[in-house]
Amino acid sequence: MPQIGGGAGQVISYEVLSRAISSLQKTTNQDARQNQAQIPQQDFALDSTQDFTQDCIQATDKNTSKSKNTSKNASKNTDINICKTARPHIIFLTPCAKPFTQNDAKRLAKKPHIAFVCGRYEGVDERAIEAFADEVFCIGDFILTGGELAALCLCDSIARNISGVLGNSESLQGESFENYLLEAPVFARHIKGEKILDSFFTDFSTADFGFSCQASAKNDKNFVNFIAPSVYSKGNHSKISILKNDLAVCKTRYFRPNLFEKWKIHNPNNPKKKG
Amino acid sequence: MPQIGGGAGQVISYEVLSRAISSLQKTTNQDARQNQAQIPQQDFALDSTQDFTQDCIQATDKNTSKSKNTSKNASKNTDINICKTARPHIIFLTPCAKPFTQNDAKRLAKKPHIAFVCGRYEGVDERAIEAFADEVFCIGDFILTGGELAALCLCDSIARNISGVLGNSESLQGESFENYLLEAPVFARHIKGEKILDSFFTDFSTADFGFSCQASAKNDKNFVNFIAPSVYSKGNHSKISILKNDLAVCKTRYFRPNLFEKWKIHNPNNPKKKG
Repeated sequence: MPQIGGGAGQVISYEVLSRAISSLQKTTNQDARQNQAQIPQQDFALDSTQDFTQDCIQATDKNTSKSKNTSKNASKNTDINICKTARPHIIFLTPCAKPFTQNDAKRLAKKPHIAFVCGRYEGVDERAIEAFADEVFCIGDFILTGGELAALCLCDSIARNISGVLGNSESLQGESFENYLLEAPVFARHIKGEKILDSFFTDFSTADFGFSCQASAKNDKNFVNFIAPSVYSKGNHSKISILKNDLAVCKTRYFRPNLFEKWKIHNPNNPKKKG
Repeated sequence: MPQIGGGAGQVISYEVLSRAISSLQKTTNQDARQNQAQIPQQDFALDSTQDFTQDCIQATDKNTSKSKNTSKNASKNTDINICKTARPHIIFLTPCAKPFTQNDAKRLAKKPHIAFVCGRYEGVDERAIEAFADEVFCIGDFILTGGELAALCLCDSIARNISGVLGNSESLQGESFENYLLEAPVFARHIKGEKILDSFFTDFSTADFGFSCQASAKNDKNFVNFIAPSVYSKGNHSKISILKNDLAVCKTRYFRPNLFEKWKIHNPNNPKKKG
């Protein structure tokens, strides 16, 4: 619809969204009835009981005795079902919102059902956001033509925190934004034989990390022979861990000073805090 | 390749990226030779001469006399061609980087050729980033399974700042993040007749904006009858503009206190700064 008060671009109206969300709710309930006997349990997104709605609790109660007998996975989570009758958790994507974070991704991975509402054109009527949104997020301080890509980012980021989505759950450990640090740099083993050359990272603790090295690296024709810090390849995992933490701190200080300040507050005894 | 120093997940190695980027460069050069006669000029992304490489300048020199005669658009930008021989501006997407912003989107819209390199698995060998990246960006403080969605977000955000991509260039005005403010709320004209009811926004200047209203709004069964602030519909565009600015300030203070602090610094005389 056109905007009240004028301005370029159309606004998605309350009425349109209201019909869409009602329709979603109906479909969800039909699915739930069809699925109740067929798929009483699944293996993912079963970790939380906190956010189940009353609908969900009722459905679970009716379902429990049956699912215990029919599901092969009944040994895990015997009293929790994916509850497709739960009202979807409705997330609006709009630039006027708080930024989505890794903590949100972990938290939302426990929701049984999320619906994303994406803005287009000039956005969504403010009253529709007030009426329908459980949460609103933006993904950053930039404008997209619509919320769809942002919603896909959220889907991806949330889904990978659901148990079983990533092949190796260790991949979730030591990631960026854990404990207010970016991840330490990673290095791949070379296809060809490697030389030992440590100078590239010798001064990492005093020099700014990252693109400060770039100019000299680009001018150095032997750059491809640069290898990872030798500690990485010497097999002492305690030393590797310490070095990785130090590099993570340097990287955070260089790229994300705000995050670095938070890290200092939460790690007051770390020797790097004065750096 | 496996990581040096151990850790879950594979790392994209220097060698793989080196071959990919060389191949990109070759393809770009071939395209350029083929296009030189056929498409000497296009209508978009022609605003900047700053970032053209030496290759580009040479190609332009050779091309100028021809393009002046053959292109219907020669009257605009007669001395600037899309330069497909320009080395692509290479952007890496990785969580260990500074966040992409709207200013970056505007700046990068002037580049003739951008190539995105997306991480997968545990990411890209740090040396490859040092060697090849012109810039590195993340889109926010959350982790994705790969950089592809982030790259799509950047594409979208950058492209809409290229002249002609949006149907109405006015849509680029007054957006969120301009002048450190989120955009004011928008309201669609109702399909049905509207009642005048101002209470919803009466206290916007003292109350927190946005989700502070949500609980009461959801409990109010007449919420759908709430309408936009009456100023919006009275046709005084000066008053509308002032109210929109005030609402934008409130919204920014509520959702993005950090942005609000920046806005205060850049707008020291605005009466809302004490709010």
